[in-house]
Amino acid sequence: MVQFQTTLNSLKSYEAGKPIELVVREFGIDPKDVIKLGSNENPFGCAPAVVKAVQDFASKMSYYPDDSYLDLKNALARKFDVTPDRIIPGNGSDQVLDFACRCVLGVGDSVLINRITFAMYRIYSLQCGAKVHSTETVPHDLDAFLDLAKIVKPKILFLCTPSNPVGDALSKSDVYEFLRRLSPETLVVIDAAYMEFGKQKDQNKFIPAKEVTDLFPNVFFTGTFSKVYGLGGMRIGYGIGSSELIKNIYKMRPPFSVTNLSALAATEALNNESHVENYLKSNLEELGRYEKFAKEESIEFIDSYANFITFFARKHGKSSTEIAQSLLRKGIILRDLKSYELNALRITIGRPEQNDKVLETLKTEFI
Amino acid sequence: MVQFQTTLNSLKSYEAGKPIELVVREFGIDPKDVIKLGSNENPFGCAPAVVKAVQDFASKMSYYPDDSYLDLKNALARKFDVTPDRIIPGNGSDQVLDFACRCVLGVGDSVLINRITFAMYRIYSLQCGAKVHSTETVPHDLDAFLDLAKIVKPKILFLCTPSNPVGDALSKSDVYEFLRRLSPETLVVIDAAYMEFGKQKDQNKFIPAKEVTDLFPNVFFTGTFSKVYGLGGMRIGYGIGSSELIKNIYKMRPPFSVTNLSALAATEALNNESHVENYLKSNLEELGRYEKFAKEESIEFIDSYANFITFFARKHGKSSTEIAQSLLRKGIILRDLKSYELNALRITIGRPEQNDKVLETLKTEFI
Repeated sequence: MVQFQTTLNSLKSYEAGKPIELVVREFGIDPKDVIKLGSNENPFGCAPAVVKAVQDFASKMSYYPDDSYLDLKNALARKFDVTPDRIIPGNGSDQVLDFACRCVLGVGDSVLINRITFAMYRIYSLQCGAKVHSTETVPHDLDAFLDLAKIVKPKILFLCTPSNPVGDALSKSDVYEFLRRLSPETLVVIDAAYMEFGKQKDQNKFIPAKEVTDLFPNVFFTGTFSKVYGLGGMRIGYGIGSSELIKNIYKMRPPFSVTNLSALAATEALNNESHVENYLKSNLEELGRYEKFAKEESIEFIDSYANFITFFARKHGKSSTEIAQSLLRKGIILRDLKSYELNALRITIGRPEQNDKVLETLKTEFI
Repeated sequence: MVQFQTTLNSLKSYEAGKPIELVVREFGIDPKDVIKLGSNENPFGCAPAVVKAVQDFASKMSYYPDDSYLDLKNALARKFDVTPDRIIPGNGSDQVLDFACRCVLGVGDSVLINRITFAMYRIYSLQCGAKVHSTETVPHDLDAFLDLAKIVKPKILFLCTPSNPVGDALSKSDVYEFLRRLSPETLVVIDAAYMEFGKQKDQNKFIPAKEVTDLFPNVFFTGTFSKVYGLGGMRIGYGIGSSELIKNIYKMRPPFSVTNLSALAATEALNNESHVENYLKSNLEELGRYEKFAKEESIEFIDSYANFITFFARKHGKSSTEIAQSLLRKGIILRDLKSYELNALRITIGRPEQNDKVLETLKTEFI
């Protein structure tokens, strides 16, 4: 018998948002009738020019990617005003989060996360055999982080802002003050997967990657093409840090970890920012409709700086799981936050006509 | 200052085959004039139906993949006559190799590899803090493996057959005899990235995934779509084992690790085996031309069961590095095996007209 690492025993798999294929398989619903608002994807898709670039390049899928990913890194370098040696691409920002964990975590080391946060921080940490500590509140509480950090001395600390899965965001000044007070030996991951949405809603909540990593060499800043750029299926994200930090994180990177079509799509997406601007405009308007609805219906929600909103189920009504299941049978995929120990639903803001249908349905379900 | 794992100090990055982009950048050669035979890609590309499927699906890149990868797993299950729960997909077979290492390796554990073998086995093992031992011969020597295994008691042992980067292959009967004599506590990875080529050349060198993993539950068998299927750029591979083994290896897998276009392309590739058959036929014929050339020119080579052949540079002539550099300036990319400590070149078997040019050029370079 092969002996596996004992750390495997404590691992549970990530519970992913449900795919359209599942609703088709389980309920026999026509794929084109499914409204998928469970995974915070761009409901308008990626820019048409990105689709075209991928189609044009498709006959070259047999070639391994250019492992330097120079075109993509140059494009990201321009976006963030940093040199390319301060960027590491990954198979989703997920992968660069994994690299960061493996760079610093040994068995028994401490990690500090928010109580409600992206589930993979815990999983990657546990895979390294680390011990995961968390704060107690639903939105981030930086004072609580500082107090706990003094006790558990984390090797890594994760801030997710705007935060997945609840949508709160930290202000730049609060984060800088926090970083000044924290030990510089702690690697601080700022997962900014939703930064473009936060920036649009409130400039004070935007943390510039260059500035924060210049000021604090212990910060690893991560972003993704899965959200605002509409490339969730292509698995492409990146990390930004000091050149020294990136050099170390690169050591955990396997070659060719991003497909050639993904690198191409991401590079092309950065040339089509007007598509993103239009989406951001629609998202903010439509988010407003969800907020208005929640207030009218007296549904508790969290002020969101992202492309989703979290509605808490009523205390004495249907549970979030019951609502999510009922909607699923109607072909509407939302995200039940039960796996995050919240009696709440996370709803991706869709296209106007999708939101019409979701809001209409929620009215009868949220009881 | 952030403290990194001490294991990082011993890590060197993988030296990847050179991309076309590099030759274009460095020597100003037109991309369409570059002959890329350095990375064992399918020189005919993937099947046209695969290209079409990807083009048709490209507008759906915004959707996260179906994380069950059920369509792909079902197609692979049919190919290998196993149940889908015995399959794990990965971002290249590279990624499932990484999962396997992380499942069993702790700091200080032993790993056993062949002296000349795929470089990533060592890198993944070192990333886990393991100690890597290796045999002394260029082709695999199973007796030497057994002798060393008794001493170092490896947690993982890697067999690469047909072997990258030199092309030798083990016979099924020898591998089974070896597995019978080895401790069942050692996880044996059989990396069969080139299995389709070996099977075609000599059926006795083919190891059926179902049979070997049925007989030996400590075997993890891996394959890829990067070689014969012509999808190197799409990063898709898989592992096969007992359902118990796969369940454990799954625990190290992050969600969505394969892009939706990659999973689609691989599934479609399995529906277009005639494209593969045509390529295999051409490869074997053209491989024969390289063998004939080597004999005529008295170039030392290794009998190959893959889509490449290894030519040793002459003892008193140009070194492999000099030849590779000279060819590069002419727009021909081969793989210098210096990083494997061999004074040799690995040449991917190309299309007939590419091989014409390479053989003609080699005649004047191999002095």
